[in-house]
Amino acid sequence: MDYREVDTASEYVCRLDHGADWRGQIEEFAAERDIDAAFFYGLGAVQDAEVLFYDQDRQEYDAIEFDEPLEVATCVGNVSHLNDERFAHTHAVLSRPDGTALAGHLDRATVFAGELYVRAFDTHLEREHDEPTDLDLWNL
Amino acid sequence: MDYREVDTASEYVCRLDHGADWRGQIEEFAAERDIDAAFFYGLGAVQDAEVLFYDQDRQEYDAIEFDEPLEVATCVGNVSHLNDERFAHTHAVLSRPDGTALAGHLDRATVFAGELYVRAFDTHLEREHDEPTDLDLWNL
Amino acid sequence: MDYREVDTASEYVCRLDHGADWRGQIEEFAAERDIDAAFFYGLGAVQDAEVLFYDQDRQEYDAIEFDEPLEVATCVGNVSHLNDERFAHTHAVLSRPDGTALAGHLDRATVFAGELYVRAFDTHLEREHDEPTDLDLWNL
Repeated sequence: MDYREVDTASEYVCRLDHGADWRGQIEEFAAERDIDAAFFYGLGAVQDAEVLFYDQDRQEYDAIEFDEPLEVATCVGNVSHLNDERFAHTHAVLSRPDGTALAGHLDRATVFAGELYVRAFDTHLEREHDEPTDLDLWNL
Repeated sequence: MDYREVDTASEYVCRLDHGADWRGQIEEFAAERDIDAAFFYGLGAVQDAEVLFYDQDRQEYDAIEFDEPLEVATCVGNVSHLNDERFAHTHAVLSRPDGTALAGHLDRATVFAGELYVRAFDTHLEREHDEPTDLDLWNL
Repeated sequence: MDYREVDTASEYVCRLDHGADWRGQIEEFAAERDIDAAFFYGLGAVQDAEVLFYDQDRQEYDAIEFDEPLEVATCVGNVSHLNDERFAHTHAVLSRPDGTALAGHLDRATVFAGELYVRAFDTHLEREHDEPTDLDLWNL
């Protein structure tokens, strides 16, 4: 396991904007606060969502659209740099009115309400192409 | 996205009491330690659970009861003030013997075993009525 | 609720090794860095997984095998000592190509890719046998 010891630069309690994109807001916030590396987690609800599943054989993401209101039971992710832009790698567990859970890589979702804890580190994390997985991963 | 930069007041590793209410214990703990703002996450198992789903059209919570033992695959939430009381906004992902997952806003659950990390902040977070969602949200 | 106030010893951003065991790597990392107590959370994908469900009546774990690629929507857990070895108590929420979620106590999983935030504490946490649950829990 590769790792990097980090120091914390700042911590934030956040409230996502109703009607805006869940992941996009995190990336805008990171850019506004000059956050080059962070981890976050939170909870809330969305009006719809698109999650991705990575096909490990074909090495491509497939999209799954949920055009319905869902609870965000958990959202975890991190912020780092990818191709000179800040990227919020975001996973979420969502739930339906009967309590059944859906989950995956959260590409976009229209926020109904959302609350996050963001912990920004005093380091720079960069994603680079990784051969075995064809994903963009950290070189720690 | 609204946000507030916070400083950490204290950090805790917690073990929930067998047979007591999951959310109620967090609120009692927050009151006992004078915690006015916190985020937490953890894991465990419960003997039963009641999760809520917020109907975004009717703007009301609907309850879903699970009268069965469940793993707590993930629990995330936060503590803040609502109507002069401490409220632990708690979401959880639960699982059944076959591994299928259930999730939602955790209203109450009888603890079988539970472990939490609680991070208390040196600030005061208050919930107020929010018009568009009819929820009680932070004014950051 | 039992609790212990803790101080942070160190924080890490980690990348799990492709093809190795998810939980085993966390335990090796903890041993290598002399971590006696920690909480962690993260996300990623696995090539297969074995999750456990604790039968609260029989007081035994039952295993559920998933021999298929899955997203790790969320992984939360902690590190402490059990029988003189470091044990990573690990729960995970996994997801399938159609977005349905699976979850439980993660015993082992072959990493496809994984990213973790680990927060190590300046304390020693030890698990001991607990009579009512027949689990190994902390004596805080």
